[in-house]
Amino acid sequence: MTITTIGLDADDTLWHNETIFRLTHKRFVELLAPYADEQALESKLAETEKRNLRLYGYGVKGFTLSMIETAMELTQDKVSIGVIKQILAAGREMLTEPVEPLPGVDLALHQLSERYRLVLITKGDLLHQEQKLAASGLGDLFAAVEIVSEKDADTYRRVFARHGSGAEQAVMAGNSMRSDILPALEAGSWGALIPYPLVWAHEAADAPVDHGRYVELGSIAELPAWVDKVAG
Amino acid sequence: MTITTIGLDADDTLWHNETIFRLTHKRFVELLAPYADEQALESKLAETEKRNLRLYGYGVKGFTLSMIETAMELTQDKVSIGVIKQILAAGREMLTEPVEPLPGVDLALHQLSERYRLVLITKGDLLHQEQKLAASGLGDLFAAVEIVSEKDADTYRRVFARHGSGAEQAVMAGNSMRSDILPALEAGSWGALIPYPLVWAHEAADAPVDHGRYVELGSIAELPAWVDKVAG
Repeated sequence: MTITTIGLDADDTLWHNETIFRLTHKRFVELLAPYADEQALESKLAETEKRNLRLYGYGVKGFTLSMIETAMELTQDKVSIGVIKQILAAGREMLTEPVEPLPGVDLALHQLSERYRLVLITKGDLLHQEQKLAASGLGDLFAAVEIVSEKDADTYRRVFARHGSGAEQAVMAGNSMRSDILPALEAGSWGALIPYPLVWAHEAADAPVDHGRYVELGSIAELPAWVDKVAG
Repeated sequence: MTITTIGLDADDTLWHNETIFRLTHKRFVELLAPYADEQALESKLAETEKRNLRLYGYGVKGFTLSMIETAMELTQDKVSIGVIKQILAAGREMLTEPVEPLPGVDLALHQLSERYRLVLITKGDLLHQEQKLAASGLGDLFAAVEIVSEKDADTYRRVFARHGSGAEQAVMAGNSMRSDILPALEAGSWGALIPYPLVWAHEAADAPVDHGRYVELGSIAELPAWVDKVAG
């Protein structure tokens, strides 16, 4: 097979993200402990996030607004301004969190970039994702960066047509079965799942069964060799 | 001159935006009237927005977070949860505001799209800008959409290289001297200012003097004829 282009997810594929969200969840639960138990808080927050996804999209700013909304709803507006202030602060800290590439990312991307065009394909806040890429030091390895509002088959067709030689000659690699793998396979690309220990509930999905263009890797370190094998 | 591509700003060029922000400012001032006068509120909000721009970027979600922060700071955390709730609601309403193309936009874009490639180039929240474009009914007239975190000369060079035949063969049209015109001229493009009655303070800048590739038009209805004249 001819492979010209590698699409890479960013959050939880190149650097930690869900870990930071989980830490903020923990802080949120502690702040609101006087009003509700962890389970009630988490389920209400998940409900608010899901309801707001259509309006706020993905990313830290929308998540911060959803935390504030949840805090007010769960306490029947009895939450203190001090708590709202701490939620705002938690959101700001998420946006300024240092970005450290995950183990093996740097080497794998260097190897891949010698033979293929690398394209970063990620959801989230536009400015924040650009800032994370710059802070990661990985920016120069990518031929293109596409920050998208949704990852569906059309997204991959469009991005791989624009930045490569079509979806059929592209591999998509990422940690989300639902966003990175299934729609890329549907578009005709190859899909390499690189699991991350935590998965946001919204991103969970079943693995494809006996799919010829799909692989689950142990880590990103295995990606260059797998792509080379596909490319023959 | 050969002109192949027309870049168009979105907010306040194709549809109202600043008007909606001003209405929300007014609502914000009314909500906090018990705590501070209009001038103090506006100047504090402008200060907070400016400070947060690096972190939140452009768009409604960041603006909502800045309103909440300002309300707490200006009242020394004495603001009521009811007010915070109304600020959240105001932000949500901005995100669901119906989108109506400004007068003359539809005809001008139809005329331009017969002869040139149209590219939408806008700042703001990714998902919200995509939603506004879809709601406007203008989406099919554009060959490409670029939602960017900053509009500088490099942005225009990159976008017009990607979607056209380079910045020298492109016209950028928009209402912001600072974001739409000056950096596009610097990149080598032509610039057509289409004034909107309100300008966000952050976007104000002086007009270029005696610049051969710059024009200020009375309305977008004049754009097709001016571009045709440039293109000879």
